[in-house]
Amino acid sequence: MSDKLKVVGVELDFRRMQLPGDLSDRYRDQIDRALREMAAVEAGEMVNSDEGRQVGHYWLRDPDRAPHGIGTLIRQTWQEIDEFAGNVFAGRYSNILWIGIGGSGLGPQLLYDSLRVPGVTPQMFYFDNTDPFGFKRTLGDIEQAGGLGATLTVVVSKSGGTKETANGMKIAKVAYEQAGLVFENHAVAVTQPGSALARLAGPESASDPATAGNEWLSRFAIWDWVGGRTSLFSSVGLLPARLLGFDTKAFVAGAREMDNATRGDSIETNPALMLAVTWYDTVEHNALRNMVVLPYCDRISLMSKYLQQLVMESVGKEGKGISVFGNKGSTDQHSYVQQLRDGYRDFFAMFLRVLDSKADVWEVEPGVTAGDYLMAFQEGTAKALSEAGRPSLRITIDRFSEHALGALIALFERTVGYYGAMLGVNSYHQPGVEAGKIAATELLAAQHAIVKHLPANAAEIAQDAIRVREFAEQVRTVEHLEALTDEFVSDVLNRFAVSGRFAESI
Amino acid sequence: MSDKLKVVGVELDFRRMQLPGDLSDRYRDQIDRALREMAAVEAGEMVNSDEGRQVGHYWLRDPDRAPHGIGTLIRQTWQEIDEFAGNVFAGRYSNILWIGIGGSGLGPQLLYDSLRVPGVTPQMFYFDNTDPFGFKRTLGDIEQAGGLGATLTVVVSKSGGTKETANGMKIAKVAYEQAGLVFENHAVAVTQPGSALARLAGPESASDPATAGNEWLSRFAIWDWVGGRTSLFSSVGLLPARLLGFDTKAFVAGAREMDNATRGDSIETNPALMLAVTWYDTVEHNALRNMVVLPYCDRISLMSKYLQQLVMESVGKEGKGISVFGNKGSTDQHSYVQQLRDGYRDFFAMFLRVLDSKADVWEVEPGVTAGDYLMAFQEGTAKALSEAGRPSLRITIDRFSEHALGALIALFERTVGYYGAMLGVNSYHQPGVEAGKIAATELLAAQHAIVKHLPANAAEIAQDAIRVREFAEQVRTVEHLEALTDEFVSDVLNRFAVSGRFAESI
Repeated sequence: MSDKLKVVGVELDFRRMQLPGDLSDRYRDQIDRALREMAAVEAGEMVNSDEGRQVGHYWLRDPDRAPHGIGTLIRQTWQEIDEFAGNVFAGRYSNILWIGIGGSGLGPQLLYDSLRVPGVTPQMFYFDNTDPFGFKRTLGDIEQAGGLGATLTVVVSKSGGTKETANGMKIAKVAYEQAGLVFENHAVAVTQPGSALARLAGPESASDPATAGNEWLSRFAIWDWVGGRTSLFSSVGLLPARLLGFDTKAFVAGAREMDNATRGDSIETNPALMLAVTWYDTVEHNALRNMVVLPYCDRISLMSKYLQQLVMESVGKEGKGISVFGNKGSTDQHSYVQQLRDGYRDFFAMFLRVLDSKADVWEVEPGVTAGDYLMAFQEGTAKALSEAGRPSLRITIDRFSEHALGALIALFERTVGYYGAMLGVNSYHQPGVEAGKIAATELLAAQHAIVKHLPANAAEIAQDAIRVREFAEQVRTVEHLEALTDEFVSDVLNRFAVSGRFAESI
Repeated sequence: MSDKLKVVGVELDFRRMQLPGDLSDRYRDQIDRALREMAAVEAGEMVNSDEGRQVGHYWLRDPDRAPHGIGTLIRQTWQEIDEFAGNVFAGRYSNILWIGIGGSGLGPQLLYDSLRVPGVTPQMFYFDNTDPFGFKRTLGDIEQAGGLGATLTVVVSKSGGTKETANGMKIAKVAYEQAGLVFENHAVAVTQPGSALARLAGPESASDPATAGNEWLSRFAIWDWVGGRTSLFSSVGLLPARLLGFDTKAFVAGAREMDNATRGDSIETNPALMLAVTWYDTVEHNALRNMVVLPYCDRISLMSKYLQQLVMESVGKEGKGISVFGNKGSTDQHSYVQQLRDGYRDFFAMFLRVLDSKADVWEVEPGVTAGDYLMAFQEGTAKALSEAGRPSLRITIDRFSEHALGALIALFERTVGYYGAMLGVNSYHQPGVEAGKIAATELLAAQHAIVKHLPANAAEIAQDAIRVREFAEQVRTVEHLEALTDEFVSDVLNRFAVSGRFAESI
């Protein structure tokens, strides 16, 4: 077993992980299963069986390996993005409002935060929730940055049915109109062909009926064989990367090279396989279930959130999972690292660092730069954790660039794929989030029923337990909402009283 | 035991926590210890015994309760902040560069992010690490926002010895000079009287020797009886709040009212005590060791990071601790909530929500606003977790304001104080971070020694294992660094090769 593996400018160092020497034999069955399943993924089998879908994010980096027809689609999208960037965006827009959540939000945020250059890169703003205050503040920020007239809005939803994104789109449309602008003339959709959002953006073929409103500026395809959390190399990531002026070719190439370096069947040479086995031994065998991600590098501080999504949404199933958190070093040393060193032992740390920094020009002491301190703090913390028996692994990037970021993301995507297969879970769906959405829909319907029957003195009712109960009985009868608790009725009344919404609702 | 408690506009709802009915009896000893220790804290005893310090953050909200002399100091600082804001800052500065890390960084970031109004509030920028790229990008952002001439720099370090902050200060000074400005004319120090930073900022009394350079604009005191992570009501928080135009009086009043509401000796009426007991039962008894913080409210999305620092640095000791993470809802429903619902059971969730939102003016469907969706998603997720046997608690704020934020922070500070006492740990020190700092210092010294003896062909050496070993032997002999590994020498050589720093170091 190698202590260190280096491919495509990315080095993985396992020396501090306290791994057994017989990893390969010990987890033979799991490794074999992971390799078999990965081969099936790349061959285009329906590995996301619950949803009856292929899993094609590797094809996005290497269309030649994609099944017949799909490669052509991928290349066509690259060309459409290029043309849009050159012919429509350039010179006309200085801002992007990105409306997308989860897999459609966090990846573009990571891209922007990793690579933006102040004064050079267009500014990017986000609607990634359904918080009215958040909408309002972001619109205020855009106003300060030149206003909606200088802003391209991109709405990203595979199905078009994501409520947060739909709400954001509706509010953006109102805001454009209030500014005397036509929303559709500034709007782009990233969605699956045939989705509600695709139809809204304009007719998809000559035989389509015309849309109700104006046609949007453009529309880019994503496909059902790309999952949200692994969509960065589809138009979800390549469109913003290209508009922001980043080198999309290098980004894709970095991922492709890492893909090629992580297909091998030996943990001696395949770093993704080695990393997955390391997680397996640490989490499943040693029961250290928290992974603390510590990028010693401001520009990739969102990587911890990105991995939280990628890992937990993929493998947090059937009673399994790894809890992922972290922000950035050395900042976090002045926060929770206290607990890592002295507290409850339920974690391993994953350090990320970047060797080059063209910005590292400031000597803060003779012969010592700010960056030397950063590196020393990283190693110092790893050493201190090690002395206290806490394992950590270290990933080092030689030079940060689009190429390196592509390689890093591809490494983690592959690792998660292997790891899910080792656990025996389907890494490519997310059934657990449905229950919450269904419950939310029921609650909204119940709220609607309550509001419809609100008596004029509802604000008082909210303060009065007995009358709330009477009112709840009445609503139950009228709307057949037998399961409605007094508690819920009271909460709705309270919320409406506090937000001052009684006047409009009665 | 009450399912719900409401004080100072903050409601805590424990219905979904699956708590036993006999909490109060079951944890009688721990509760008594917590109350005893809290009384000692407020009476000014040296409860932070390892460091020989009092713990006075409650006094900051109510100087009348402080020991003799301390109350006067607190009030004097309030007045100094007011005068500085009115006479120096107003009309002259539109930006603040805040240089502080950990307790001196995260709190002010939370304040700004919670309360800023685009186009009204001055812009705030941060140096909160020692990453050269981070410094460079932040300086670029300031340039875009009007430059350093319009920027007040605040350097925050209790001791003045925090390396990240010291490095940030040195780099800020260089940047001001390169812009043709005198750093000291734009700089303010927040530090302990007598510290290295205080002396740097100017003479502290008539008998002090003059400082080496110019005198800084101003200097504000923090004291050894205020810990970094509980310093928001000292000048660490009140100075930026006042400069940014926030209502500091309401902020302090909210905390003071919450302090008054969380002194009682019964979990029936004291929400902080109830919350601490809830944590104890859940974490220590039921072994659900992760607390997932989900603010359904963009403006307090940093609260999860703030609580991560407050809780983990306070109680992550002697093998104890709670791992805290989370970002914001409903965004996170499209990320790791999958694992919360279906994955490994090692957590409880803490939902935060705000009822009023003056911004909630957009109906996205007839009678349904964006904010209704937000509330429904929160409850829907709580319900879905509950059905899967995952406990959650819910904290609701009626109206968001400085007053509410003050109350909320005071609630958590008190809860952590009780909880630490129940565990039997000292919540007020952080011994675990020292080991990492010491190791970092040793590594920097070793690097320095290596660099000093770098041969001219060091870049080649970095590629050559055998010669690295020979070189390492030589360094060991010359500098008596016997413990230096070839590994470390090789890493230093590599870093210098990649960053192109050989030319300057040989």
